[in-house]
Amino acid sequence: MTLKIGVIGTGAIGRDHTRRITRTLTGATVTALSDVNAESARAVQGALAPEAEIFTTGEALIASENVDAVLVTSWGATHAQYVLAAIAAGKPVFCEKPLATTAEAAFGIVEAEAAFGRRLVQVGFMRRYDASYKMLKKIVESEIGQPLMVHAAHRNPSVPEQYTTPMAIHDTLIHEIDVLRWLLDDDYVSAQVVFPRKTRHAHSGVADPQIVLLETKKGVRIDVEIFVNCQYGYDIQCQVVGEEGLANLPEPMSVSMRKEAKRQSTILTDWRERFVESYDVELQDFIEAASRGTASGPTAWDGYVAAISSDACVQAQKAPGMIVPISLPARPALYQ
Amino acid sequence: MTLKIGVIGTGAIGRDHTRRITRTLTGATVTALSDVNAESARAVQGALAPEAEIFTTGEALIASENVDAVLVTSWGATHAQYVLAAIAAGKPVFCEKPLATTAEAAFGIVEAEAAFGRRLVQVGFMRRYDASYKMLKKIVESEIGQPLMVHAAHRNPSVPEQYTTPMAIHDTLIHEIDVLRWLLDDDYVSAQVVFPRKTRHAHSGVADPQIVLLETKKGVRIDVEIFVNCQYGYDIQCQVVGEEGLANLPEPMSVSMRKEAKRQSTILTDWRERFVESYDVELQDFIEAASRGTASGPTAWDGYVAAISSDACVQAQKAPGMIVPISLPARPALYQ
Amino acid sequence: MTLKIGVIGTGAIGRDHTRRITRTLTGATVTALSDVNAESARAVQGALAPEAEIFTTGEALIASENVDAVLVTSWGATHAQYVLAAIAAGKPVFCEKPLATTAEAAFGIVEAEAAFGRRLVQVGFMRRYDASYKMLKKIVESEIGQPLMVHAAHRNPSVPEQYTTPMAIHDTLIHEIDVLRWLLDDDYVSAQVVFPRKTRHAHSGVADPQIVLLETKKGVRIDVEIFVNCQYGYDIQCQVVGEEGLANLPEPMSVSMRKEAKRQSTILTDWRERFVESYDVELQDFIEAASRGTASGPTAWDGYVAAISSDACVQAQKAPGMIVPISLPARPALYQ
Amino acid sequence: MTLKIGVIGTGAIGRDHTRRITRTLTGATVTALSDVNAESARAVQGALAPEAEIFTTGEALIASENVDAVLVTSWGATHAQYVLAAIAAGKPVFCEKPLATTAEAAFGIVEAEAAFGRRLVQVGFMRRYDASYKMLKKIVESEIGQPLMVHAAHRNPSVPEQYTTPMAIHDTLIHEIDVLRWLLDDDYVSAQVVFPRKTRHAHSGVADPQIVLLETKKGVRIDVEIFVNCQYGYDIQCQVVGEEGLANLPEPMSVSMRKEAKRQSTILTDWRERFVESYDVELQDFIEAASRGTASGPTAWDGYVAAISSDACVQAQKAPGMIVPISLPARPALYQ
Repeated sequence: MTLKIGVIGTGAIGRDHTRRITRTLTGATVTALSDVNAESARAVQGALAPEAEIFTTGEALIASENVDAVLVTSWGATHAQYVLAAIAAGKPVFCEKPLATTAEAAFGIVEAEAAFGRRLVQVGFMRRYDASYKMLKKIVESEIGQPLMVHAAHRNPSVPEQYTTPMAIHDTLIHEIDVLRWLLDDDYVSAQVVFPRKTRHAHSGVADPQIVLLETKKGVRIDVEIFVNCQYGYDIQCQVVGEEGLANLPEPMSVSMRKEAKRQSTILTDWRERFVESYDVELQDFIEAASRGTASGPTAWDGYVAAISSDACVQAQKAPGMIVPISLPARPALYQ
Repeated sequence: MTLKIGVIGTGAIGRDHTRRITRTLTGATVTALSDVNAESARAVQGALAPEAEIFTTGEALIASENVDAVLVTSWGATHAQYVLAAIAAGKPVFCEKPLATTAEAAFGIVEAEAAFGRRLVQVGFMRRYDASYKMLKKIVESEIGQPLMVHAAHRNPSVPEQYTTPMAIHDTLIHEIDVLRWLLDDDYVSAQVVFPRKTRHAHSGVADPQIVLLETKKGVRIDVEIFVNCQYGYDIQCQVVGEEGLANLPEPMSVSMRKEAKRQSTILTDWRERFVESYDVELQDFIEAASRGTASGPTAWDGYVAAISSDACVQAQKAPGMIVPISLPARPALYQ
Repeated sequence: MTLKIGVIGTGAIGRDHTRRITRTLTGATVTALSDVNAESARAVQGALAPEAEIFTTGEALIASENVDAVLVTSWGATHAQYVLAAIAAGKPVFCEKPLATTAEAAFGIVEAEAAFGRRLVQVGFMRRYDASYKMLKKIVESEIGQPLMVHAAHRNPSVPEQYTTPMAIHDTLIHEIDVLRWLLDDDYVSAQVVFPRKTRHAHSGVADPQIVLLETKKGVRIDVEIFVNCQYGYDIQCQVVGEEGLANLPEPMSVSMRKEAKRQSTILTDWRERFVESYDVELQDFIEAASRGTASGPTAWDGYVAAISSDACVQAQKAPGMIVPISLPARPALYQ
Repeated sequence: MTLKIGVIGTGAIGRDHTRRITRTLTGATVTALSDVNAESARAVQGALAPEAEIFTTGEALIASENVDAVLVTSWGATHAQYVLAAIAAGKPVFCEKPLATTAEAAFGIVEAEAAFGRRLVQVGFMRRYDASYKMLKKIVESEIGQPLMVHAAHRNPSVPEQYTTPMAIHDTLIHEIDVLRWLLDDDYVSAQVVFPRKTRHAHSGVADPQIVLLETKKGVRIDVEIFVNCQYGYDIQCQVVGEEGLANLPEPMSVSMRKEAKRQSTILTDWRERFVESYDVELQDFIEAASRGTASGPTAWDGYVAAISSDACVQAQKAPGMIVPISLPARPALYQ
């Protein structure tokens, strides 16, 4: 039995997921497409899913009998409404991050899903599906004792003019915010941001680099260097220091060479290459859970906590050095 | 359009490939099964391919209208007859190594396919599909100048009692024999074997370790250490030394730790883990080519050359220190 | 011409330096010894410097015509008085850290030396003489652009019962305080301390680990993890992130092995091994400068700045999360 | 008591050793100099040893009452005569390699020293004093079980026009010949040479690279890649494979960087930097043994065995692929 998926939003990521479902993954097909730009939907239909029906609105797509499960890959501001509509229809829904543009809206989704009583929502935090993070989590849980500290870095070669200081949280740190909670099985209680000397490679609108200090409920201290104009490459680092030893996120596989008086190996420069395989695993997981009428992986609650935590970090950016508390409501039973 | 595959031989590897086709890969389904042990075929049918038809003989399976392409995963001695039958039927066929148990029989397949005039045969040398070897090949072809030497090692933690000295060639070195030809785009002209002091961990029936020295047409000198009771892990090493620099086969990704006064990371101990992903890629490649009525990847000619080269190495084992020439007939146009 | 050195304080470090001068280094000899415990001085005389004269007081030793230069390796609380006496006598003096037990006393030495008008004092910050730090400094000054951040760690396997929270600054961080100023050619402007969850391996009297955040005049942000019960080894880490790239302090040389399913190499567990060679280089440098009637390497000013900066860090320990300013008087011309 | 050393041969290496003795090492002074070029001897006297007496002949220098021990750093063809003269005078002598230009002449020295009955000769194989080889030997003797194979490489960036094929043995491999015997505590029984495709960077007079295969008495198989125009750096590799695991010669310490899309660290390009510290340790060892009237480190016997083994390798170069036996006379009791 093949899962019939409807895709809302056929921009770059929507198109890419459609390709995944129709070409690489198993157990699903794309039967419906929708985009505010009908042209874009038709282009994806023509290239990848000739038998898909095109819907004028996401709501109509969700309502279709020919749709078992929904992918929300539209503009961020529209995510919440489609996710809520899918919950209302009782259909599993995969939503790219952010789950919603405000923590309040994200919490509305949490409440709706909790009221429905069964998981339907998976949020697109793909790092949890990355082979290197999965290896690290396994080691952290078995080899190094209780975690005490995390030293992390998120570095991009450069960012465009429109990238602003808060985007370092919402678009960049957001991945660490989710994956470190998952890695440590913990939650944040405070955030602080410090701004080092600014690199000459950053444009005027962005403070770069930044260091975000997070504290967790269990007392783990996390420092994340965000450096989005580091020049040298796309580089994700994560070191967990535990009571008995420490563990590092594996480096992407590469050929070590000796050449021109250097031992050398290549660092990726494009973030898409770094996590490309995790997108496949993530979406396959969605297909499998949705085929059973439910959802797996990152929850609406995770999406909500990411929103609350990001908001605190942005607030901390505005008052450098200040320690901003992060507090969460009680976790609904569905997410225990 | 889904490719209908018939699987001849439902032992461990046949079962595994059936699982791949039905669960992980796209574009194909298993419609037919056959095994000398009918029980085994029925077990695979029950577990993985309930709609597959069971055939009493491989030949009947190949002849079935419900079979577009054939997987030969039966006992090695039967490979050649099924591959020949598939060629006769004009159906693409994936054959696990060895293509045949003698070089002569392998050459018969080469002649049959050349006479047919289109590629139908893919031989199961999966290392060519391994991500680390593909990375290495890319570097070798672009970064280090003309290759001059290869230093390689093939190490297993241990082997069972029935593993004998010639198996170090036929079952172990065979992978290097194929993948190094491909890596260097070259052929062998001679082989020599030297036997170091035997490890105390080897049983009486096997000389272990061994070093095989190969010379290629272009003059590249290859040394391969075969050490099948090395105790410490399953470890595949390959260093290519070129005129401008050298390149190493990437290590499998692993978490580096600091613990108990050691910087450490895990070495695999099970060969199945090392190349597990390459089996998927290999078979997906077969499905795609077979869907177009042809074959891709390692050819019948590659299977034949591997047989000829292995035979020379076994002969070299019998006369330690002697340099045994390897010569090949002209390469048919189909394989240029 | 051989430099005649008098050693005040013949405990472990005094004895060790005496051995260095008499056995390993060139250009100097030990002609005088003094210790509050006369027995100890006689023991060192007997074992290492039979021709040395024993003095009852450090002051008498300094005054001796048979002493060209002085080593102060006595109990920390007595350092300042002997250094001041050596300056008064116009004799070069090497003083183990701390230069003085209060910043005020250290400043008194700065003033005395500045008044004398020529450098006479070298403070025992040996890391500046360590080959790995020297390599790092060279790279930082030429290869990675302007430094923006430093991520450092100072880890010990364990500490004894008498090690208390402030000692993490005075005895442990003190080395980073000095060496990072030197590495960056910069000064500190503030300090903050955060306390992660405490390791189960720390005794009740010490908060362990700690993270010290330092800010420099040029805006560099430094985080130093101090973890003195890390169990796994004695491990000094330092990563400098610059505008064009990053550089890591070299690891001590070690044999990489493959054994028991691990790629592994040894981590030192004894701090004495880590910097053993730098003590030789440091003291040889003292001998050479003292032979010319002056001093080289870390200055009295460096000792004073280390004291001021340490005091701020200890204050920051008492108010976790608070950012404690560090301010310095004008640097005397002698130290420009 | 200071050892009075006479230096015969004041070229580059003689001058360098004179500097070591007078500036860096302890326990010795240079009291006598001699060179066929009196100008050269005077230059070294002026720069480094103003109180040394200049002798017209090496023999006169050896006979001087003001000389306790002798350094032979003259032209290779003259080594044997000076070493024999020193033995005749009962004075410890350090002789740079080669001990003699023929195996016969080297054996003459062995016989003379054995007749004298006490060790007086140290041969200048400095690798045994290198920290990385000492670390490796310790691991090989304790951690990896019985050695079975050694994979080694000796690579230079390039060599001048006058470097010929046999020099790859006499000037390059000679270091591996000595150090691997020492590392394994073993002797060679045969040698074979194979010539890979020649690099385009080698001039017409030298076959480059070469691979030398050595077999030891205990059955260890050694392959040494000699590649003297490898372009990329001066690189010495040594991997010992034992019954329980394998161990690699440590890399020289270096700063690892991330820059320009590469993880990178520097490879040395000048052989002098690679072993610079081992020369100090080697000569200090000579001073200490000579002060007791004897010699330590590599023996005349080691020098003789190196000569015999090199001759076999050169013979093997002339008959590529042929296995040339290496046999030694009984080892005199003095060298057991």
